[in-house]
Amino acid sequence: MDPDSVAKAFVEHYYTLFDANRGALVNLYQEGSMLTFEGQKIQGSQNIVAKLTSLPFQQCQHSITTVDCQPSGPAGGMLVFVSGNLQLAGEQHALKFSQMFHLMPTPQGSFYVFNDIFRLNYA
Amino acid sequence: MDPDSVAKAFVEHYYTLFDANRGALVNLYQEGSMLTFEGQKIQGSQNIVAKLTSLPFQQCQHSITTVDCQPSGPAGGMLVFVSGNLQLAGEQHALKFSQMFHLMPTPQGSFYVFNDIFRLNYA
Repeated sequence: MDPDSVAKAFVEHYYTLFDANRGALVNLYQEGSMLTFEGQKIQGSQNIVAKLTSLPFQQCQHSITTVDCQPSGPAGGMLVFVSGNLQLAGEQHALKFSQMFHLMPTPQGSFYVFNDIFRLNYA
Repeated sequence: MDPDSVAKAFVEHYYTLFDANRGALVNLYQEGSMLTFEGQKIQGSQNIVAKLTSLPFQQCQHSITTVDCQPSGPAGGMLVFVSGNLQLAGEQHALKFSQMFHLMPTPQGSFYVFNDIFRLNYA
């Protein structure tokens, strides 16, 4: 698969898990992984998933508008930049968001999330 | 300087140059640098600056809303994620944008832009 296809497949997998079973995202992070969520810095897969599962909404649906990707350097990492909409259950209007992931390869030939930065784009 | 201060200083420097003299941005990129601008992929400092200087507006003013940063790995790189507004001369409304930079250290103790992804956030 080319990098753009890998990036798109990752993004679809990530948000499908997020919307269906946020706790399962723990497998996509590792101990050194970092999340900056609306300016709050969190490190480590358990802490990151604790943050994501404690967000003040239960049901949500991400829809993706754009996915851009670039190789991040000789270590085989990949930068993935996403924009999209986040619809919360019971809310009339979707929220716009931007998010970037830095994916690093695993020995098994897959990727994990080393860096994750999320921001809502307020209108 | 701590990483957040470096990221903020870089971002201020970058957009000040962009708004005053776009051609001078050439010094912030290198031959391996990549830009994805609204989905269009461009590589190399000369090509990147040719793209930026050929955008269909002359005067513009960036204003920054948020700057987030994380270390990108053992090579000493830094990921910088920006959201803000872009006001074009003669336009009534500013455009919202998100942009990410992957800064890599130079031997001189400074940073250059290795990865750059830019997207407008359409309302």
